Amino acid sequence: MIKVTIFNEFLHEKKSEKVKKIYPDGIHKAIADFLGEEEDTSVRCVTLDMEECGLTQEVVDDTDVIIWWGHMAHDKVPDAVAERVRKAVWNGMGAIFLHSAHFSKPFRALTGSPCNLCWRESADSERIWVIEPNHPIAKGIDRFFDIPAVETYGEPFGIPTPDRIVFMGWYSGGEVFRSGVTFERYNGRLFYFQPGHESFPIFYQKEIQTIIKNAVRWAYNPTRRSTSAPWVNLPTVPSEYLKR
Amino acid sequence: MIKVTIFNEFLHEKKSEKVKKIYPDGIHKAIADFLGEEEDTSVRCVTLDMEECGLTQEVVDDTDVIIWWGHMAHDKVPDAVAERVRKAVWNGMGAIFLHSAHFSKPFRALTGSPCNLCWRESADSERIWVIEPNHPIAKGIDRFFDIPAVETYGEPFGIPTPDRIVFMGWYSGGEVFRSGVTFERYNGRLFYFQPGHESFPIFYQKEIQTIIKNAVRWAYNPTRRSTSAPWVNLPTVPSEYLKR
Amino acid sequence: MIKVTIFNEFLHEKKSEKVKKIYPDGIHKAIADFLGEEEDTSVRCVTLDMEECGLTQEVVDDTDVIIWWGHMAHDKVPDAVAERVRKAVWNGMGAIFLHSAHFSKPFRALTGSPCNLCWRESADSERIWVIEPNHPIAKGIDRFFDIPAVETYGEPFGIPTPDRIVFMGWYSGGEVFRSGVTFERYNGRLFYFQPGHESFPIFYQKEIQTIIKNAVRWAYNPTRRSTSAPWVNLPTVPSEYLKR
Amino acid sequence: MIKVTIFNEFLHEKKSEKVKKIYPDGIHKAIADFLGEEEDTSVRCVTLDMEECGLTQEVVDDTDVIIWWGHMAHDKVPDAVAERVRKAVWNGMGAIFLHSAHFSKPFRALTGSPCNLCWRESADSERIWVIEPNHPIAKGIDRFFDIPAVETYGEPFGIPTPDRIVFMGWYSGGEVFRSGVTFERYNGRLFYFQPGHESFPIFYQKEIQTIIKNAVRWAYNPTRRSTSAPWVNLPTVPSEYLKR
Repeated sequence: MIKVTIFNEFLHEKKSEKVKKIYPDGIHKAIADFLGEEEDTSVRCVTLDMEECGLTQEVVDDTDVIIWWGHMAHDKVPDAVAERVRKAVWNGMGAIFLHSAHFSKPFRALTGSPCNLCWRESADSERIWVIEPNHPIAKGIDRFFDIPAVETYGEPFGIPTPDRIVFMGWYSGGEVFRSGVTFERYNGRLFYFQPGHESFPIFYQKEIQTIIKNAVRWAYNPTRRSTSAPWVNLPTVPSEYLKR
Repeated sequence: MIKVTIFNEFLHEKKSEKVKKIYPDGIHKAIADFLGEEEDTSVRCVTLDMEECGLTQEVVDDTDVIIWWGHMAHDKVPDAVAERVRKAVWNGMGAIFLHSAHFSKPFRALTGSPCNLCWRESADSERIWVIEPNHPIAKGIDRFFDIPAVETYGEPFGIPTPDRIVFMGWYSGGEVFRSGVTFERYNGRLFYFQPGHESFPIFYQKEIQTIIKNAVRWAYNPTRRSTSAPWVNLPTVPSEYLKR
Repeated sequence: MIKVTIFNEFLHEKKSEKVKKIYPDGIHKAIADFLGEEEDTSVRCVTLDMEECGLTQEVVDDTDVIIWWGHMAHDKVPDAVAERVRKAVWNGMGAIFLHSAHFSKPFRALTGSPCNLCWRESADSERIWVIEPNHPIAKGIDRFFDIPAVETYGEPFGIPTPDRIVFMGWYSGGEVFRSGVTFERYNGRLFYFQPGHESFPIFYQKEIQTIIKNAVRWAYNPTRRSTSAPWVNLPTVPSEYLKR
Repeated sequence: MIKVTIFNEFLHEKKSEKVKKIYPDGIHKAIADFLGEEEDTSVRCVTLDMEECGLTQEVVDDTDVIIWWGHMAHDKVPDAVAERVRKAVWNGMGAIFLHSAHFSKPFRALTGSPCNLCWRESADSERIWVIEPNHPIAKGIDRFFDIPAVETYGEPFGIPTPDRIVFMGWYSGGEVFRSGVTFERYNGRLFYFQPGHESFPIFYQKEIQTIIKNAVRWAYNPTRRSTSAPWVNLPTVPSEYLKR
């Protein structure tokens, strides 16, 4: 059983009538619904307004893969919570950062980079191309698929050179973007995925759901490895090996 | 002085009236003209119809950076010539592969990959985005520039994960492509650059010329290192270091 | 069922009494024995003296993962056979290259690199360190393990920057070596592993067997993707997405 | 003129008689001495006991390359100072982290990783091998060199996969370590270098000095690029390019 925790800011859905119409119970609920269809996955949702953002040590310890959606209130997440998430990733928790979560505290802290980019809200279409057809996160996705309306992101994207660029985005307005990229940090795997603006019903699209499901499986790591474990004094090599 | 050798197939320019009008003296001449403007660069041109493609051992030994354009006659380049180029790259010669040279014998032999891709001849425009603004090959290039008409290339591009993706291409027909990528092979540096179809006056465009000039400087390596040099029996570590 | 084909030169074992004593039925037989213990793995052995090295198109088509051991007769493998193996890797066959197979035709052709190195035959011990404890190939291996006697390999190793360095070797004579490295080429995965000199009973060591078993599973790719498949003319993006 | 700022904790040299004997004016002074020999380099030293560690905004703005030595008081560096350094690196300041600076606040924040490792204080010798002979940081260094006595570091080293492993360390006690590694973060270059324990006269060794001098030149980036610069709304692609 893969235990997924979805963190959602859950602000736009309460403040904007337009967004509320698309995601009446919040973006987290839309994601939880399709992830919940999987037999081997259990889903928990937490939001910004909960104590410690709902991400207490107990919850984080009980999470295999975290999914993060945030946009307008990144700075409302306490530093201690962001650091707790980062350490859990180091130990082996998978992490999926959606759309504007490129600017979330944990993603920036894990990449060590500014994570800045360009953007435009103009309801361009995005065509997502598969760059690595062999990658598990691209499983079941054809050569490309279209999202009718998105917020446009543009390069340069201020991230370290990713391990893999699984998807690249083409926007009708003229931009390209590294829309699906992976990183590894110590024992943990990260996937950043560009689509998911709150003003469009993107999380109801079949291909988006397939990709997030794939990413959960890819990021899932059943073993934990503490960052303090290897801090031990080493024995020297046995002397019988040094005789020559 | 950087010694550049330009290899051009020089077939389209003789067979097609349309191409001849654009490049009356061959694509190599158009490239040589703007590279020749640089004070510290000397340029030599060779073509497929010359003995050993003009790439005798003497010529290759006297080359710092090779620029390769080929399209319809990759298999006319003798294996021995391709292997001579590959070995020279290993030893430190820089190599720039333009457009359809993704399928040239030396590029495939140096990447170890199929180098296949998708394409469409439809005179789409291409917008080239700078992904690594800090890279020397992007020097003097704004955030992006447009090429009015190109042959479209599409992903997936069958290359190893590049060291750096300096440029990505956006095509008006809906594709993206890793249009400018770098690799290193032993002592030598490689740059592949997508634009350069023979039917369009691409090599007269200012930004294209800037990029190729930058790439020559980046790929130039004044030192040579033979692949046979390190094949020596090693002494063991001095015993005084092993006493503990 | 993972279908493994082991290619062994099988020359040292016939020419040298010392080697014959260690591997009376050949190195391939020693590897086949421990791989054959796995319930989901079937093993076939082929040798240099067989027609087409035993690697006919039928055999290669019927192979999920190839293991390659060669040393003194790399040039006896016909180019056509090496190219057949390379293409199969591109399409998705996994490949494990052992010890002196760094100089085999398929490994050099897949890396595009000279693959040269330094060496010394002095029965140093090698301590293999796990650099990526999270990597599937390192599963079940402690922080390090020792091989009592090996042929020493030394850096610089003339390979492209690997995707991952899973193991690094420490030699009692004073050298280090990137002893276990991975690459990807199109649809196929490669693992190079340094230990395995014919003069020592290395393939009987438990940790070596665990690593090769792990590597077989890691390199196994159930899907095939032809390098010719994507060569299709692309449709342009639907015009309704371009209206703004 | 490359403006180098050396930050040194400067505690061991005051607290330990043994260390004071080796570095009577501090490690920073030893480094400043050999860097100061370079005609195109100007050197400034700052220490932990200075206001804001000597790293005021003015000083950081006036620095091309920072060199960091810290060991026992990483947590005494204010978060704001560490963040100032990180932002300067993003904008283009080079950064060289020596020895135990793997655990410094700026290095951990820039890598996004735990940066943990194993160690042993036993005066092993270290043999530093050049893995990338072609890298500018290795210029003038032979295939390897020996340091008579060091503090041993051991793998696994909790860093992201480096861009390049320039040097690997072999220790007489049986360990290996990625002793010289590079990273890029946005506009800035990082070099981590393992040798430099306070109890040994390592910074007086010729090869160490050559490497640090090389690293300063390699990390030096004359252009600055703000992380806020690209945050502009993009124009859409000119409509004349979209007509087909």
